[in-house]
Amino acid sequence: MPTIKDVAKKAGVTVTTVSRVLNNRGYISEVTRKKVYEAMKELNYQPNELARSLYRKKSYLIGLLIPNVAHPFFAELTGYIEYYAYQEGYKILLCNSGQDSSKEKEYIDMLKRHQVDGIIIGSHTLEAEQYLNVKLPIVAIDRYYSNIPYVASDNYKGGILATKLLIQKGCKKIAHISGPLILNTPANNRYKAFKEVATQENVEYFVVETKLNRFEIEEYKKIVRGLFKEHPDIDGIFASGDLIAASVISVAKELNKKIPQDLKIVGYDDINVANLVVPSLTTVRQPIKEIARKAIELLLRQIDGEKVEKENILPVTLMERETT
Amino acid sequence: MPTIKDVAKKAGVTVTTVSRVLNNRGYISEVTRKKVYEAMKELNYQPNELARSLYRKKSYLIGLLIPNVAHPFFAELTGYIEYYAYQEGYKILLCNSGQDSSKEKEYIDMLKRHQVDGIIIGSHTLEAEQYLNVKLPIVAIDRYYSNIPYVASDNYKGGILATKLLIQKGCKKIAHISGPLILNTPANNRYKAFKEVATQENVEYFVVETKLNRFEIEEYKKIVRGLFKEHPDIDGIFASGDLIAASVISVAKELNKKIPQDLKIVGYDDINVANLVVPSLTTVRQPIKEIARKAIELLLRQIDGEKVEKENILPVTLMERETT
Repeated sequence: MPTIKDVAKKAGVTVTTVSRVLNNRGYISEVTRKKVYEAMKELNYQPNELARSLYRKKSYLIGLLIPNVAHPFFAELTGYIEYYAYQEGYKILLCNSGQDSSKEKEYIDMLKRHQVDGIIIGSHTLEAEQYLNVKLPIVAIDRYYSNIPYVASDNYKGGILATKLLIQKGCKKIAHISGPLILNTPANNRYKAFKEVATQENVEYFVVETKLNRFEIEEYKKIVRGLFKEHPDIDGIFASGDLIAASVISVAKELNKKIPQDLKIVGYDDINVANLVVPSLTTVRQPIKEIARKAIELLLRQIDGEKVEKENILPVTLMERETT
Repeated sequence: MPTIKDVAKKAGVTVTTVSRVLNNRGYISEVTRKKVYEAMKELNYQPNELARSLYRKKSYLIGLLIPNVAHPFFAELTGYIEYYAYQEGYKILLCNSGQDSSKEKEYIDMLKRHQVDGIIIGSHTLEAEQYLNVKLPIVAIDRYYSNIPYVASDNYKGGILATKLLIQKGCKKIAHISGPLILNTPANNRYKAFKEVATQENVEYFVVETKLNRFEIEEYKKIVRGLFKEHPDIDGIFASGDLIAASVISVAKELNKKIPQDLKIVGYDDINVANLVVPSLTTVRQPIKEIARKAIELLLRQIDGEKVEKENILPVTLMERETT
């Protein structure tokens, strides 16, 4: 493998000059720069990024800490985060915290050791806050952590739109299947809005919660079956995620409930699955691509030393399809 | 931030000794080791992983190059790869090559510069082979590249099982929706097995291909609509992926075809979606978790200097659900 010395020799310059070209430091004439680039190309020289990172104190690595990339919402979000990071020359170190707060802590320590330039965190454990005592630029997605800037969809508005639609379509007894309310997240505003609208409109309502970090369809189906067992005459459900809503469709079929005649369903997220299930899912669309773009933008501005706005709420859209 | 010097001072040893403890080199007594660890703990010292990587010539980074993490198959695979890598102390640098072969080339160059210890590639561009001329340990998933070891499910067996099931259930005119056959991948054996069984059993058959790197549901639906327009009496479909199969369910509903009475469907993969759609999908189960585990195992054995078997075929299972 050719070294920086070989490049210097070939270009007829000093090692210091090659290093300056590589790191874009100090004055270098265009002629010299060209000579160095040509020598690098001819020798197929690959600069050692680790050494450069150490020297520049910049790794161009972003740590992405999420509960589970196998969940379609996080999969789509990760896809876009990688896309926008790549545009700006950054790479993604993927960290699934899973159910496991000790793994999360280890990952945050690891990210510090690897000198990532910043962290995007969309994690779902209760203890995350205490680990986040790091001096790195951080952006949270759908989470509140004391002073850390966050990006979220307009959860409150989404909850209003979903609940009003169910009532407007004639539902008399509605339920919300929420995420784990023990987490202090912006997503709890979906629940808050649901309760407010149902109370205002004087419609009977129920709330059931999904468990912390159980992103499993069988788990969701169990919760939905339990809900219908207790309240067989529920005629409208606002689910706090499309996977949950799709599980409701599946259980409704088991119970011979006709959608949307006997049961109306609204989801949240608008992941690809929403348009794939039959009947296709009415849902509140989070702008997943925009959330990713905003998170990268806020992180890069912090990396550049800028102070950024703490609250970043992006608009939602009601997508009416066949379940309402 | 505390430095290695602060640790040495606190522990009452030399910097060299601390460095030896960190890198596990040379003789260090248990007493000294303990003193150093205690000093690190008290000072909350974080070793600089970049510097250590450079010194050890080992980064504990694995580059994962896939077409698109937003596709549920790759999302689930990535989740397990991250899981097994983490168990072994490795971190995942996530690279979506997307539709773009120039992005793929840039990523492979980048992975070399970042001194990843190895690459797992499940990429879908035609040009990948020429970029892979690297001296790093590599494992391919579902792709053939000259001498690179690969992991794949038993695609041929899967194709046999799927096609035989359709015929056994009474289908008289069957179709296969394949991946892009222009790619020389193990997945083409699904197509090969389909053709062989249909010919043997003397059943009329058709094949349509999906396009390179278009993982979009609307794209799939278009292909399925085209197929039914030309051959409205097709009564059995073996789709080369569960997302495609789910799109068939969706189009069948548009066309008022009853499943499984008028139309039987078998997918491939057994991603979570297969069990979520209504009717639930009969499919050939790839052992996604095992594929991930095997890929990490083969990569780590190569990193340790071992030569590994080139062909690694893992068994499939037919999951009979409601579409057949």
